Amino acid sequence: MDFWGEFLGYLAGICTAVFFLPQSVQTIKTKDVSGLSFGSYVIYCIGMILWIAYGAYLHSIQMIFFNAVSLIFAAIILFMIVRQR
Amino acid sequence: MDFWGEFLGYLAGICTAVFFLPQSVQTIKTKDVSGLSFGSYVIYCIGMILWIAYGAYLHSIQMIFFNAVSLIFAAIILFMIVRQR
Repeated sequence: MDFWGEFLGYLAGICTAVFFLPQSVQTIKTKDVSGLSFGSYVIYCIGMILWIAYGAYLHSIQMIFFNAVSLIFAAIILFMIVRQR
Repeated sequence: MDFWGEFLGYLAGICTAVFFLPQSVQTIKTKDVSGLSFGSYVIYCIGMILWIAYGAYLHSIQMIFFNAVSLIFAAIILFMIVRQR
């Protein structure tokens, strides 16, 4: 079970990354952050930091890694929202 | 640490729910799924199922609960995308 259990976490992380990253990359490339809410992205970044901390508490490399990737993209978008305000 | 560790998981789940749910509720209410990709939502639903399974492997109620909530909303939206095709 150990191998498959760990494997599940990687597979889950890849699926959510495949869902979210193309949209984030496009937003960063086009620099079009109109319609994106500053407050929502602040809450999302806080959420990612909390998931990383919770992942550390559970000793889950998968949760730490995939949430850190999301946090980097969300932080770039948040920075762009702040700059365009 | 146990209480605070568990608490982190709930707080993280609430933050991501606050970020995602309003958008999902709006999509379901307005029934406007144009521009939403069938393939992306299939991958997202699979991802949520895998996170739930991985949460079960880690014995994390928080991961199971919050990913199940996301899965329900994503499944409704996926169903709407299929119906409008």
